Amino acid sequence: MHELTARLQDLLERFRAGQRVALGRGITLVENERPGFQAFLHHVLVSGIRAARVGVTGPPGAGKSTLVAALASAWLAEDEEVGVVAVDPTSPFSGGALLGDRIRMNDLATDPGIFIRSMATRGSLGGLAATTREVLDLMDGFGFPRLLVETVGVGQTELEITGAADTVVVVLVPESGDGIQAMKAGLMEIADIFVVNKADRPGADRLLKEIRAAIHLRGPAGGPPDATAGHHGVDLSRIGSDAAPKESRRWEPPEGWTIPVIKTVAHAGEGLVELRAAIAAHRTHLVESGELEVRRLARTETRIRDVVERELRRRAWADPTAREHLASGPDRVVGGDETPYSVAAEIVNGLMRGESRE
Amino acid sequence: MHELTARLQDLLERFRAGQRVALGRGITLVENERPGFQAFLHHVLVSGIRAARVGVTGPPGAGKSTLVAALASAWLAEDEEVGVVAVDPTSPFSGGALLGDRIRMNDLATDPGIFIRSMATRGSLGGLAATTREVLDLMDGFGFPRLLVETVGVGQTELEITGAADTVVVVLVPESGDGIQAMKAGLMEIADIFVVNKADRPGADRLLKEIRAAIHLRGPAGGPPDATAGHHGVDLSRIGSDAAPKESRRWEPPEGWTIPVIKTVAHAGEGLVELRAAIAAHRTHLVESGELEVRRLARTETRIRDVVERELRRRAWADPTAREHLASGPDRVVGGDETPYSVAAEIVNGLMRGESRE
Repeated sequence: MHELTARLQDLLERFRAGQRVALGRGITLVENERPGFQAFLHHVLVSGIRAARVGVTGPPGAGKSTLVAALASAWLAEDEEVGVVAVDPTSPFSGGALLGDRIRMNDLATDPGIFIRSMATRGSLGGLAATTREVLDLMDGFGFPRLLVETVGVGQTELEITGAADTVVVVLVPESGDGIQAMKAGLMEIADIFVVNKADRPGADRLLKEIRAAIHLRGPAGGPPDATAGHHGVDLSRIGSDAAPKESRRWEPPEGWTIPVIKTVAHAGEGLVELRAAIAAHRTHLVESGELEVRRLARTETRIRDVVERELRRRAWADPTAREHLASGPDRVVGGDETPYSVAAEIVNGLMRGESRE
Repeated sequence: MHELTARLQDLLERFRAGQRVALGRGITLVENERPGFQAFLHHVLVSGIRAARVGVTGPPGAGKSTLVAALASAWLAEDEEVGVVAVDPTSPFSGGALLGDRIRMNDLATDPGIFIRSMATRGSLGGLAATTREVLDLMDGFGFPRLLVETVGVGQTELEITGAADTVVVVLVPESGDGIQAMKAGLMEIADIFVVNKADRPGADRLLKEIRAAIHLRGPAGGPPDATAGHHGVDLSRIGSDAAPKESRRWEPPEGWTIPVIKTVAHAGEGLVELRAAIAAHRTHLVESGELEVRRLARTETRIRDVVERELRRRAWADPTAREHLASGPDRVVGGDETPYSVAAEIVNGLMRGESRE
């Protein structure tokens, strides 16, 4: 599978030469799973991953895009190139405007030091997560030293950010009044840094206190002490797979890291210095504690699982015999004698090698 | 795979003899994917499916559980046995109380004509959907003529109800003021019947009008006419799989069925007669138009796909060689030369038969 067609070899060379157009083409190749996309990713990744990846998540309306734009602007001002992936259909990166904000998204988007890609949700959370990680890999392989990924924290997507970022910033706002909700939704478990954005509004200090209390309650060793938290706790081993645990451990904050809670007014640029300092401190902590290596190894294992499972599905439904069985299956089941389980066993036994059959 | 162990053969016999305990054991077997669960489901399903399946979905707090309890009570009063599956961690069926309601959940739960199972969300939406459908199948095979499934309409779970129910009832309430939100979230596309619950509260008539207008705008042939709706439209082909479309068509309302909008005050029993009449009318329509057969065939195809994909994953990670590669993979990738794609290709090529290899 490592063979590239002449066309993709050409694309790879232009990609390695630093041509932006080639990066864009590579992303389109991967997003649409066109033939050869795995081989292309293999060749891009074989030189390793290097970028510092920061994820920004939180409820809709928390100001995530403004924060991301502010962080990107600050890094650009120091001549550090930034790649941005926004996984949020309502994100201004997808075409919306941030009127009245100090950071003009349009100015940012035309800065040659930044590459912005917004990704539409396409129904399958698992699929979106896989593609997001691959787009980040492409930006990493292209040479961006800093990557920002913005995901809307709705349902279970926020959990997947732990598979995409080294440092997870969870953004909350006073008016959502959802400090406790955030804990329930599992945001508590994934935050390396908390941001209380729109901190000039009423309720900011109460939210700050709630978050600090929750962090304190949980303690540095991870694992919520109260009985109900277990019910809502994030068991990463279940995410994205119903068949087998992906990782045997729950997500735990690294030892020796106290989660900071930072007040910001993103559109006015307030608190940005503190946030950047916290991100830098977390990076240092990750590297020095060895946690970065631990997280990268765990992510790599998840990635291998995901790629294997996607390949199995892809090849299964490209197989002519499997397709025939699938086409005739429903009639046979509704007609009696057969069930989805007998038809599926027929298909799976036809696909897998002898020793994997049952 | 059709072979049953002696223990499961015994369970199957007690299941067929109508022993409630055997139904409960069967559900546990399936929920935990214990060895032989596929064979057990095959033997239960081989005699076909018969139950009328009604799904009730909507936002949290819409009163879905109360409606489900009211419907179940009404059917029980006519000596029709009912199976209930609640897929909602906040559902009163999971242990919460419906204080002050006319229908006492405890009285209902102890009625010998009803079987209630509540299912916790376990992280994977796809996995939950698969198991929910299998639990419904078990109740169907056990002999319940009516099945009710309650799912909370958050994120994308509501879409999966079309894979579990013949008739989908979407419940909204005035105070959520989210008529338009519901359209965006894709509830519009899946509703066979709309219910405006808590219709004694302010705003009920406005919500009713909004829903009727949206139904009228969409027209009987399905497909939203406005440009933005396409963005939010429900493409069922993407649900639960990132590899291949599951169905080639979007969900469309059956021709000749005008979606009724019914006002209820579920806790007071108001509007229940109308709702039951609408459910019965929709059933008649499904049978007479042939749409029931169409839906069952489409669902069977999706089911076969799901079972195949789960089996592929299950067998892959049970394979000793695949497990070895997965265990050594992360170190090899982080060490260089290998990537998740090369390790995955190694694993997949080891699992699949020659003709499916690439």
